[in-house]
Amino acid sequence: MLIGAPAPELDASEWIGLPRPLAALRGRVVLVEVFQMLCPGCVSHGLPQAKRVEELFPEVAVIGLHSVFEHHEAMPPVALRAFLDEYRIRFPVAIDRHDGDRIPVTMRTYALQGTPSTLLIDRAGRLRQIAFGPLDDLALGAYLGQLLGEAGPDAEPAIELEPETAG
Amino acid sequence: MLIGAPAPELDASEWIGLPRPLAALRGRVVLVEVFQMLCPGCVSHGLPQAKRVEELFPEVAVIGLHSVFEHHEAMPPVALRAFLDEYRIRFPVAIDRHDGDRIPVTMRTYALQGTPSTLLIDRAGRLRQIAFGPLDDLALGAYLGQLLGEAGPDAEPAIELEPETAG
Amino acid sequence: MLIGAPAPELDASEWIGLPRPLAALRGRVVLVEVFQMLCPGCVSHGLPQAKRVEELFPEVAVIGLHSVFEHHEAMPPVALRAFLDEYRIRFPVAIDRHDGDRIPVTMRTYALQGTPSTLLIDRAGRLRQIAFGPLDDLALGAYLGQLLGEAGPDAEPAIELEPETAG
Amino acid sequence: MLIGAPAPELDASEWIGLPRPLAALRGRVVLVEVFQMLCPGCVSHGLPQAKRVEELFPEVAVIGLHSVFEHHEAMPPVALRAFLDEYRIRFPVAIDRHDGDRIPVTMRTYALQGTPSTLLIDRAGRLRQIAFGPLDDLALGAYLGQLLGEAGPDAEPAIELEPETAG
Repeated sequence: MLIGAPAPELDASEWIGLPRPLAALRGRVVLVEVFQMLCPGCVSHGLPQAKRVEELFPEVAVIGLHSVFEHHEAMPPVALRAFLDEYRIRFPVAIDRHDGDRIPVTMRTYALQGTPSTLLIDRAGRLRQIAFGPLDDLALGAYLGQLLGEAGPDAEPAIELEPETAG
Repeated sequence: MLIGAPAPELDASEWIGLPRPLAALRGRVVLVEVFQMLCPGCVSHGLPQAKRVEELFPEVAVIGLHSVFEHHEAMPPVALRAFLDEYRIRFPVAIDRHDGDRIPVTMRTYALQGTPSTLLIDRAGRLRQIAFGPLDDLALGAYLGQLLGEAGPDAEPAIELEPETAG
Repeated sequence: MLIGAPAPELDASEWIGLPRPLAALRGRVVLVEVFQMLCPGCVSHGLPQAKRVEELFPEVAVIGLHSVFEHHEAMPPVALRAFLDEYRIRFPVAIDRHDGDRIPVTMRTYALQGTPSTLLIDRAGRLRQIAFGPLDDLALGAYLGQLLGEAGPDAEPAIELEPETAG
Repeated sequence: MLIGAPAPELDASEWIGLPRPLAALRGRVVLVEVFQMLCPGCVSHGLPQAKRVEELFPEVAVIGLHSVFEHHEAMPPVALRAFLDEYRIRFPVAIDRHDGDRIPVTMRTYALQGTPSTLLIDRAGRLRQIAFGPLDDLALGAYLGQLLGEAGPDAEPAIELEPETAG
C-alpha cells in the first residue's frame, strides 16, 4: 500500500540517542528496525542484523523504533535504556508514541503486522520495503545494494564495497 | 587488476551438468563459485552460500569451478561427481583445466589466491568482484543487488524481490 | 569452596510457578540456572540450554534463579513474568531476595561471579558444580550423566537414555 | 541386540595413524565414529563432534571407522588421507574391510544403518550405545559422563571435569 510513497515520519514520544527524524536523512538509504525489547525474534535476529548492517554499510542510516504493543508495563523507557546498554545497541532509538490505543501510532500508520519488522527507505525518502519476521541476510543485502546503487536527489555515485578476504 | 574488465572465459577440461560458458550468459548477472571438494571452507561456507543464491535469485546464473591445486590425486572427476551428488549441488560445474602446472589454468588467469573464491560478473560480462575466503551474506547480497539493479546490454529493468514474511 | 557440601537453600522473595525448595528435591539431580532477564549470555545461551536439559532429561529438576545485581529498576517481577511468557520458559523461577545490598542474598551465599551461572546438585543434596559463563553442552551433559549415574539416598538405578536416531 | 555384550573387534584393512584395536583399550571408555568422507552429516556433525570429545575428555579414546558403502571408487585410501589432512582429524582411523560385499565387514557385524553412527564402549569392553544420525551434544555428554563414572575392571575413580568459566 505505502510501498513507493513517501515514508511517513516516525512519531516518537522520546528518542534514546540523538533524534534522527526521517526528514533529516534525505539523500541516504535508511533502515528502520521495529522491535520490542522482550520479543525473542527481535533479540535473536532483527537487532543483531541491524547492528551488522550499521557496521558493514556506513552509508546506511540505521534507526530503531521501539513499538510496544504487548506487555506494556514490562517495557518502560527505563527498561529499554538498560536493554540497549546490555545489548550494546548504539544506533538511535525512537520510542513509538502511545495515544491510548494498545498499538502505538507509527506502528498503526505503517500498518505493521508485528515485530520484528524492517523498513527500507530510499535516498528520495520513499518507503521501498516492509519485511515482517526474520529477513534473510542475502535478501536484505540485495535490497540495500539496489537502493545504494540508485542515484539520490543529489545523484550520488553508486557505492563500491570493499571485498572481504580470508584472515 | 581484472576488476572492471571483461571476464576471461572459464577454461574447462570437462563440465558436469550442461556447459555454461560465460559468453552465453551475457545479459545476466553471474556468480562463479571456485572450490575444491576437499576444502573445508568451501564445504561449510562457499558452496552452501552459492546454493542459497541460486534459490533466492533466479536471475543470477550460478556456476561452480572446480580448481584443484592440492591433493590432485584425491579429487578426480569420479570423486567430484560423487561429491556433487551427496551434497545435492545442481548448478553446472566446470573442471578447471590442468596443463602440467600444479595450479589449473583458469585459477592462474584470474590470479586467485585460493579456495573458496567467489567471482561476480555483471550483465555486460565484466568482472566486478573477486572475494577470497568466507564472504558475509549481507555483503554478497549487496553486490548482487547492485549488479541486478544495473541495466544490461539490453537494458532490463531492475529486479524487485519479494519481501520475506514470518511463518 | 562449597563444592561437595550440602547446597544452601535458595532464598526466594517470590516464586513464579510452583515453589520448588531444594529440600523438597532430595533424591533428584537438580540444575539451577542463575540468570538476569536482560543478560545477553543468559538469553542466548544459559536459558535455552536449561530448557533443553529439561526436555531431554525428565529426571533432572530444572529451576531458574533470577539474581538481579544490575539495572534493578528494569527487571521487576512484572517484567520478569512478561519475559518468561515471551521466551516460553516453563520451569519454576525463584526471585533471589534483596536485603538492601546491590547483590541479592542467594547470589552472595553461593559467591557467584555473575550471570549466567549453572549450579548442579546431586541426589544427596550436595553442591557438585558451579559453572560461570557459557557451559559447553558436552561438558554439561557429562556432569549430568555422572550425577544421574550415582545412587541416591534411596539407591535408584542409573538412567539409560534413549539413543537419538536420524529422521 | 549387541548392546551390553562385548564389542566385536574392528576389522580394518588398514589403519591411518597408530592402530588402536579395541582389545588394547580395555579400562578406557571408547568412542568409535563411523563415517564416510563424502557423507555430509559426517562432515558437518559427526566428525566435528568426535573431535570435540577428544579435546574435552582426555580419558575417552576416540577412533574413526571409515565404512564406505556407496561411491566406493570416490573414497579410496589416498583420498581419505587427503580428507583427514584437510579436516585436521588427528585420531586414528580404521578403514573398514571390504570382502566383496557392498557393505564392509565391521559395518555388517554391528548391523549399522548408515553414517554417521557413533558407538560407545565401556571400560569393560562392552558395547553400550549405537546412535545413528546426528546425536545431541547434551545426550552424548550424558552417555560419556555415565560411562566415565563407572568403575572399570581396575576400578578407576570417577572423572571430575573442570568447570568452564567465561572469558
